[in-house]
Amino acid sequence: MSVSLMSACEAQSAAARVMARCDALAAISESTDGLTRVYLSPEQLRANARVAEWMQAAGMTTWQDAVGNICGRYESAAPGAAALLLGSHLDTVRNAGRYDGMLGVLSAIETVQWLHDRQMRLPLAIEIVGFGDEEGTRFGITLLGSRGLTGSWPQSWVTHPDGNGITVAEAMQDVGLDAAQIAQAARAVEDIAAYLELHIEQGPCLEQADLALGVVTAINGARRLNCCFTGEAGHAGTVPMTHRKDALTAAAEWMLFVEQTTREHDPQLVATVGTLSCLPGAVNVIPGEVQLSLDVRGPQDEALERLLSALLTQAEAIALRRGLRFSAHEYYRIAATTCDIRLQQALSHAVETVQGRSISLPSGAGHDAIAMAERWPVGMLFVRNHRGISHHPAESVQAADVALGVRAWLQAICALAQG
Amino acid sequence: MSVSLMSACEAQSAAARVMARCDALAAISESTDGLTRVYLSPEQLRANARVAEWMQAAGMTTWQDAVGNICGRYESAAPGAAALLLGSHLDTVRNAGRYDGMLGVLSAIETVQWLHDRQMRLPLAIEIVGFGDEEGTRFGITLLGSRGLTGSWPQSWVTHPDGNGITVAEAMQDVGLDAAQIAQAARAVEDIAAYLELHIEQGPCLEQADLALGVVTAINGARRLNCCFTGEAGHAGTVPMTHRKDALTAAAEWMLFVEQTTREHDPQLVATVGTLSCLPGAVNVIPGEVQLSLDVRGPQDEALERLLSALLTQAEAIALRRGLRFSAHEYYRIAATTCDIRLQQALSHAVETVQGRSISLPSGAGHDAIAMAERWPVGMLFVRNHRGISHHPAESVQAADVALGVRAWLQAICALAQG
Repeated sequence: MSVSLMSACEAQSAAARVMARCDALAAISESTDGLTRVYLSPEQLRANARVAEWMQAAGMTTWQDAVGNICGRYESAAPGAAALLLGSHLDTVRNAGRYDGMLGVLSAIETVQWLHDRQMRLPLAIEIVGFGDEEGTRFGITLLGSRGLTGSWPQSWVTHPDGNGITVAEAMQDVGLDAAQIAQAARAVEDIAAYLELHIEQGPCLEQADLALGVVTAINGARRLNCCFTGEAGHAGTVPMTHRKDALTAAAEWMLFVEQTTREHDPQLVATVGTLSCLPGAVNVIPGEVQLSLDVRGPQDEALERLLSALLTQAEAIALRRGLRFSAHEYYRIAATTCDIRLQQALSHAVETVQGRSISLPSGAGHDAIAMAERWPVGMLFVRNHRGISHHPAESVQAADVALGVRAWLQAICALAQG
Repeated sequence: MSVSLMSACEAQSAAARVMARCDALAAISESTDGLTRVYLSPEQLRANARVAEWMQAAGMTTWQDAVGNICGRYESAAPGAAALLLGSHLDTVRNAGRYDGMLGVLSAIETVQWLHDRQMRLPLAIEIVGFGDEEGTRFGITLLGSRGLTGSWPQSWVTHPDGNGITVAEAMQDVGLDAAQIAQAARAVEDIAAYLELHIEQGPCLEQADLALGVVTAINGARRLNCCFTGEAGHAGTVPMTHRKDALTAAAEWMLFVEQTTREHDPQLVATVGTLSCLPGAVNVIPGEVQLSLDVRGPQDEALERLLSALLTQAEAIALRRGLRFSAHEYYRIAATTCDIRLQQALSHAVETVQGRSISLPSGAGHDAIAMAERWPVGMLFVRNHRGISHHPAESVQAADVALGVRAWLQAICALAQG
């Protein structure tokens, strides 16, 4: 086992600073009674300015790019070398927690701060990016910040309106950006060696494993479907059980199958029926139609497709056996993002160094790394958050876990930045 | 096998008259685009007047009683004898069918017409009642007509308001009735030998059995409950299947148990989950709470209680095993009404005579006979209706089935009225 570069005491100070800065950013909100900070808002500019100050204090040169991401570079030993890019996002959902996104940016600054304090330069530069939009809160389209860097903004995005009818292009103008310049945010492939992101888990696995840190294997792919069982409504008192075409009991049989089969398939797959409505929906009427959603996710697209196919086949079979009809319409699909093996190994080694052992887990939620993986190898480090609560003011992390996170982060970066 | 008193040809004419009169009553509605006729309305008075004319044409003396039921008596061979009371209701649900209730009253008139045409008097008188309220459409309280005859109106009913704030007492006044005289509608126990009702099945059993007529064994008792599974909401992407406390999959497991267990318990029991709502109810959130209704019915209260108890015990067990909570609140309960064995036998014999064979079945829906059974033996004859559709403009019966019904009805009445 390697020796940790950052001492426990140094890490404690760094974590205290991260926590204080998370609090400071949480105060930059469009409302005073909760944290909401959306893309291309005055609050984003203020948050960018604060983060730039902290980057500069860590010896970085900073700039805001053409789509509004705040960027910093800590030069390499050989100026002009490619960079390890560390990042996460600075925007939030409405009434958000204060760690989702911000923790990754602020922890990254601490690793550079440690190098800067020691005037250490690595063979690779270290860059940090605070993305302006990951959540998609304002425009309903997501990953606008990271897609700026990858140069994969669809042309149609600039005319996309927010809830008040203000387009992305107009909103850019409002904060001094120019939609005609978006392409300038794109980074050359050779400029960046890899993208690394530290993020809160937003799930319960690390807490269940009693560990502060874990290494992400992949960001789950997802499929979302609207499904419908159509049977026959009837009088709840007069139609015998054997004569019914009850859409709700058919759906119940299927939901139980969804749960059991997903559980048996692969512990990394999840399937959820989150919404269900009965028609006509009266206490004394047998449901004639049930509409329900299905959300399936998993770290490997093939396994996900196999599962989904098994679930839909069974729905058809249940409907057929019961004399009902089943239909399903997929309305959302995102491919799984695999984390780079070499980066996973480096992160695991770093986690073992500071935590004694490492754990690997998929990410159920989406992250900037999804977009970044289109162009660069990506790696992610998860930090435990209490009960997995996220997207909520009760979102919380422990300073001690953050300290471990910063230590592991530094350890991995120094290993990887040897080039 | 007995010989049918009424010839097939006579029955055909009687049925044609019944169908035409159902059409005539269907035109007496508060709106022109559907049939709606509620208690203590001008339409009720008009319907009563038409029915009274038809009763009189059949040789009956008629009167409207103190709660607005239209009544007729065909005197016995020995004037003043007790009566066999035939009846059903003349009120409707909103946007109703034209047979639910009316068919029973009009078929009864045909049996008396047949006797009158032949100047036949029986040892018992035949009385017919067209109840003013069975559905409870106007005041939300049901069986006001039949409870007038049984003398079991609660005092509180007279101050009960309709949707416009008009009380039952005020509405009575509007049609020339006097709430202070309600008790006068009550009939002495000894005046009535038995109550018999012919009604459309409002269910699919006769159609499935390919028979026009069936004899009712009992009117199902019912229990209605609001139930709730409380688990833990969570991120559909980040919480592994094994860590979930999904309220919807728990409910699904239970709904499947409800269906299977009810089916296995007794073919005459039914259980229905007719409404279900998920909280928070989003495609990407594991349901933390599910509220659902349970409606169970059966012809015997003991069996019903045993079933309900088994269902609730299992719900608790499912919740416990899954780490959730379950609660249930019963908000409606009505006891089962058993049809008199002697009357069932007489009706079965009559049905065998006209139909070749008889079938017995419980009634899933409620009827005036529920109230009447508090004081007198009751018997019911069901007539097949297409697909069991009722409480809907598409409600339909075939004239040929009505013809068989009138024949069986007359057969049973003549047998029973021998005293």
